Amino acid sequence: MHQPIRRIAITTGGGDAPGLNAVIQAVTRSALQRGWTCVGIRDGYDGLLRPERYGPGEGLIPLTLPRVDGIAALGGTLLGSTNQGNPFAYPVRQADGSTALIDRSQDLLDALSRERVDALVAVGGDGSLAIAHRLAQRGLPVVGVPKTIDNDLDGTVTTFGFDTAVAFASECIDRLHTTAASHHRIIAVEVMGRYAGWIALHAGLAGGAHAILLPELPFDLAPVAEMVRRRDAQGQSHSLVVVAEGAHPRGGERALSGPAEAGHAERLGGMGEQVSQALARLAGKDARCVVLGHLLRGGSPSAFDRVAALRFGAAAVRALAAGLSGVMVALDGNTVRPVPLADVAGRMKAVPLDGDTLATARDLGICLGQ
Amino acid sequence: MHQPIRRIAITTGGGDAPGLNAVIQAVTRSALQRGWTCVGIRDGYDGLLRPERYGPGEGLIPLTLPRVDGIAALGGTLLGSTNQGNPFAYPVRQADGSTALIDRSQDLLDALSRERVDALVAVGGDGSLAIAHRLAQRGLPVVGVPKTIDNDLDGTVTTFGFDTAVAFASECIDRLHTTAASHHRIIAVEVMGRYAGWIALHAGLAGGAHAILLPELPFDLAPVAEMVRRRDAQGQSHSLVVVAEGAHPRGGERALSGPAEAGHAERLGGMGEQVSQALARLAGKDARCVVLGHLLRGGSPSAFDRVAALRFGAAAVRALAAGLSGVMVALDGNTVRPVPLADVAGRMKAVPLDGDTLATARDLGICLGQ
Amino acid sequence: MHQPIRRIAITTGGGDAPGLNAVIQAVTRSALQRGWTCVGIRDGYDGLLRPERYGPGEGLIPLTLPRVDGIAALGGTLLGSTNQGNPFAYPVRQADGSTALIDRSQDLLDALSRERVDALVAVGGDGSLAIAHRLAQRGLPVVGVPKTIDNDLDGTVTTFGFDTAVAFASECIDRLHTTAASHHRIIAVEVMGRYAGWIALHAGLAGGAHAILLPELPFDLAPVAEMVRRRDAQGQSHSLVVVAEGAHPRGGERALSGPAEAGHAERLGGMGEQVSQALARLAGKDARCVVLGHLLRGGSPSAFDRVAALRFGAAAVRALAAGLSGVMVALDGNTVRPVPLADVAGRMKAVPLDGDTLATARDLGICLGQ
Amino acid sequence: MHQPIRRIAITTGGGDAPGLNAVIQAVTRSALQRGWTCVGIRDGYDGLLRPERYGPGEGLIPLTLPRVDGIAALGGTLLGSTNQGNPFAYPVRQADGSTALIDRSQDLLDALSRERVDALVAVGGDGSLAIAHRLAQRGLPVVGVPKTIDNDLDGTVTTFGFDTAVAFASECIDRLHTTAASHHRIIAVEVMGRYAGWIALHAGLAGGAHAILLPELPFDLAPVAEMVRRRDAQGQSHSLVVVAEGAHPRGGERALSGPAEAGHAERLGGMGEQVSQALARLAGKDARCVVLGHLLRGGSPSAFDRVAALRFGAAAVRALAAGLSGVMVALDGNTVRPVPLADVAGRMKAVPLDGDTLATARDLGICLGQ
Repeated sequence: MHQPIRRIAITTGGGDAPGLNAVIQAVTRSALQRGWTCVGIRDGYDGLLRPERYGPGEGLIPLTLPRVDGIAALGGTLLGSTNQGNPFAYPVRQADGSTALIDRSQDLLDALSRERVDALVAVGGDGSLAIAHRLAQRGLPVVGVPKTIDNDLDGTVTTFGFDTAVAFASECIDRLHTTAASHHRIIAVEVMGRYAGWIALHAGLAGGAHAILLPELPFDLAPVAEMVRRRDAQGQSHSLVVVAEGAHPRGGERALSGPAEAGHAERLGGMGEQVSQALARLAGKDARCVVLGHLLRGGSPSAFDRVAALRFGAAAVRALAAGLSGVMVALDGNTVRPVPLADVAGRMKAVPLDGDTLATARDLGICLGQ
Repeated sequence: MHQPIRRIAITTGGGDAPGLNAVIQAVTRSALQRGWTCVGIRDGYDGLLRPERYGPGEGLIPLTLPRVDGIAALGGTLLGSTNQGNPFAYPVRQADGSTALIDRSQDLLDALSRERVDALVAVGGDGSLAIAHRLAQRGLPVVGVPKTIDNDLDGTVTTFGFDTAVAFASECIDRLHTTAASHHRIIAVEVMGRYAGWIALHAGLAGGAHAILLPELPFDLAPVAEMVRRRDAQGQSHSLVVVAEGAHPRGGERALSGPAEAGHAERLGGMGEQVSQALARLAGKDARCVVLGHLLRGGSPSAFDRVAALRFGAAAVRALAAGLSGVMVALDGNTVRPVPLADVAGRMKAVPLDGDTLATARDLGICLGQ
Repeated sequence: MHQPIRRIAITTGGGDAPGLNAVIQAVTRSALQRGWTCVGIRDGYDGLLRPERYGPGEGLIPLTLPRVDGIAALGGTLLGSTNQGNPFAYPVRQADGSTALIDRSQDLLDALSRERVDALVAVGGDGSLAIAHRLAQRGLPVVGVPKTIDNDLDGTVTTFGFDTAVAFASECIDRLHTTAASHHRIIAVEVMGRYAGWIALHAGLAGGAHAILLPELPFDLAPVAEMVRRRDAQGQSHSLVVVAEGAHPRGGERALSGPAEAGHAERLGGMGEQVSQALARLAGKDARCVVLGHLLRGGSPSAFDRVAALRFGAAAVRALAAGLSGVMVALDGNTVRPVPLADVAGRMKAVPLDGDTLATARDLGICLGQ
Repeated sequence: MHQPIRRIAITTGGGDAPGLNAVIQAVTRSALQRGWTCVGIRDGYDGLLRPERYGPGEGLIPLTLPRVDGIAALGGTLLGSTNQGNPFAYPVRQADGSTALIDRSQDLLDALSRERVDALVAVGGDGSLAIAHRLAQRGLPVVGVPKTIDNDLDGTVTTFGFDTAVAFASECIDRLHTTAASHHRIIAVEVMGRYAGWIALHAGLAGGAHAILLPELPFDLAPVAEMVRRRDAQGQSHSLVVVAEGAHPRGGERALSGPAEAGHAERLGGMGEQVSQALARLAGKDARCVVLGHLLRGGSPSAFDRVAALRFGAAAVRALAAGLSGVMVALDGNTVRPVPLADVAGRMKAVPLDGDTLATARDLGICLGQ
């Protein structure tokens, strides 16, 4: 049985995602409502592991009501950089100039103890949740909050950040329709998604793409070029192809390159660019590539993501108050519930090949490169 | 066993909702992919029941690929007005000038048969789905698609239209913060939701409201006024109160009126206006009311709603192709599935008082008038 | 000749307007670039006139680079409330409980002198600029920055806030089209503009309104009702009427009321509501009113307004550096220039009846109630 | 003296720009109001010059009230592709397979005469307006409407399309702030503007960029790298640099390349990419490039652009009605007026180096690479 909680800390890890500040607000307000105090750890765990980088006492940010007022609508995170060292494999410069990865988890637990932090809310993706899991195993009460733009975390129906990314990608595709049409072009739109095609699939559907290429479905370009030609024949002289960055051709990247490129394959650019160039050749049309990448991480969270983030944050505090540890809060149907971190860690949620969303794309006649 | 389908019709009923055109597009493209043809019935069922209002053959709109191209991003519905007569109780002007409600369902079935329509996709809310259910019982293959801005239909985790409404309401609340603050005011924001407070709760959370009043929780204004005074004392001289149109005070409307109004209660305005006036009196501050009502029904659907609407539309056609009838397509977790219309008809989905979303509002310190 | 400036203050007055924070940022950064320091006066002039309301030294906000970082994108104003007392007629509670208006301008000048403020940037509308003018006449170096949502300040082609208001009003009108169409309704949309119809005219044009009623053109409803009937006859069963809050019927308000209302004219509501009810009677159709009022004051400024506000703020500091006083910065063609406050004070810029924008409305067939 | 006009045509040329459909709507409605008829020429002038591509009579689109209803809010153009052949130098395939440029202006005038078109409204940029000028010199009544995303047409304060492009670019920069900050990165944002830096300057100001590089000001990267280091030293570990595609380093592109690239300069990518790579080297930080290019051409026009486009379209018809020809409608202060095409053709409007907008950037401390 854990001792009663009086003070908690919150950390945000991994890449930027819209909704982080809403989680911070919800955790703070929920904690204060219970009479606890709340602090944020700067820059992942660095506020505690590298105190010399900050002024004395500056590694932790006291989270008060005025401090978190209005932040739920803001992108980014109050807590600074999200991309910092793993306390179990922390990069430490050696005497010979090289960098070694050292287990500094005990330093972290000691620092938390010194700061009289009784429990931790850890917000992050796969990597950050694995760290959270290991910290919980060491005896620290820890609750994880899932965070991924890519929607590829298992154990939860969705999380915050994904909706904002899809909405903006879809708005970008909307904008490209008329430009592609005016210039009789193919436009390939590359979106995030190294291992899972959720953003490509949802944004492609919402934006009315004519083809969508996903990591889950190795593609051939021949059917895509055929779709472009069929549209041309019907007087629709433009085509939009949404490409997940992790999509890949059935025969490997070499399958995309024409004779000219064969020699210097090293500078092919991302998958959107490669698809664009190969399609131009195959379909005999002008083609361009637009890479949305970084644009999808930032921005003010959508209302959906704000509500999701607030619910996750509040649920994390409720879980701690109930004495839980080693769990992640997850959306299940219409309810946010705790699930064991052990059950979700290291499991990637791909787009199910037999799911109704992919079936919808097929039923709408969208080419999937098959 | 139904005979094979060659031609289907689609009808949209009830109020305007963002996503109707996306459903129409998905139904059309899915039907054409299967080699079926597809028509839209104008103005609910009036295209078939009042053919004299339209040119010959104009009561049905042939739905072709070019006709539905690009419409998924547009608000409204291709099929004209959504608020028309119920074929089971159709308003017919009598000789004496009065209007009687006549069962014209057989006229409708005959007209569908004459037009060689083999099956129907009926998009609508509670009322329209009940009609769909009765038509299915009469032997017509019918699949329903749930439509409600208010999110109050049972049997499905969510539907299209709600996300767009919440997003816009939340944006409006965002805008009102600085204005309320600059003028030291209370602003009451009235949103749709006669029987269920989903929009008020989600938009209030996303927009950072200080109080939220729902139909599910009869409210007292005293704690709301107390919250306003507490904020004032902390130097935060504005407060935003989100009021569902169907929220109601514990003691009845009379509980809100001051002595001055007691005499002519008949012109009190909506609940937002009443709350605003009563709070001004109770908290001794300037208060205003903004009614979002009609603004929440229209507009281009959000990416979330477009994807949901496309999935519902495609799933409806798949259900018909599988020989189903008398079902509604519904979102269950991450999957759209058919559920029997008999199980959902007439059941309202209120905000659960023990759900985590309401708990989140409480944990954030948002006043619920309790 | 003024002595060299080392420290300036900025004040914001009048109602909320998107872009105030961008002005503050530009003034601050421009001042610091010149080696000056910069402070903001809280709550209009109250930070100096009512120091007891604030902690010691809290009436002025030191404006540093970190303090103004990122604020150009935010609505509202860092400096608190914009609606405070006029130092030349300051409300002071008398011993007998009444309130008298006292000239406290010398108190203000003394306080500025005590705080070693050498010059003032005064951001505001008609009233605030008149105060700025009088302070300049008293010897304080003062430059005004025009601020009006309504676009009705003379001497400048436009100012900040107006574009954001028009953009949002136009988006609201966009949303109402499909809802009005689905329900066969007239919708009257009331927008700000007590004396000038700029917002109504621009938002009505951008949003595709069918009629626009302006303060500059007293209207008859008969031609509006005629337009509604003509649209009905053409199968377009909805109409949108944009009404400036200051629009008025040619014969006075009584001209709008039907026999039923004649008795209790005291509760007619705003002009949008009156137009809606009268049109419902005249055109024999369902009609509703949407009042956008407060929604148009807040929100993140549009890119146009941010650039305008930044240019105005920087130009104000350049004007002070050049030794100017008693001027307002104004947009003239593509250039921001100083103009004498004496030339613009008290002059209202109405929509010119012979201008090309109004001619455009007429050429497009939009009914102006004539 | 021209004969009375009974029928006019409209053509749109050059790249896609938000607002084209609003011009078409305004021209159509203004013409019909005068009792004229109106047609649109498909695909630039191809609807008349290549009638064989279209069905009989399909090269012209009859523009009626229902046809243009609601289109002012849509991106793109009703008239199809905007990028087609110049009638004075029309590409014609020769017998030997080569392409020759032939003067087909008389074919065009003959076709217009056959179609009983009395006058032409030509919407386009520099090239299209030069064609319009030459057609006017041949005796056809022609009025030009300026169209440029880049804002680089002389003779008019602004035109439509620019505001929408700036607004979207500014929104993209907003989104990149938190991502750049979370990852401690430099992000270079490349925007359109081959010869003029208007979009870069306005979007950079509105989006809070730390450096802006314009075609008008050949840049050095040393001061940009210095700015990045200075921000780093102040704990602001990210920097955003807006780069116009036509910006160029003072010493030529070679000045940007490090030793590694010197060998294969042919694949350097656009200027944004080059700046990003060179800055990474100079400042010793991670740097990325985001190219907005095509995203800035499409989309629904902003309210500002809709109003501008409607005013231009209506003014063009008024000019024709007044018997004018060989003029372009232009915005001058707050009024749209005709100016001679001869005065504006071939004159590029660069960002004035002594203008107040550039002065604003300097006053705000934004690095211009100087």
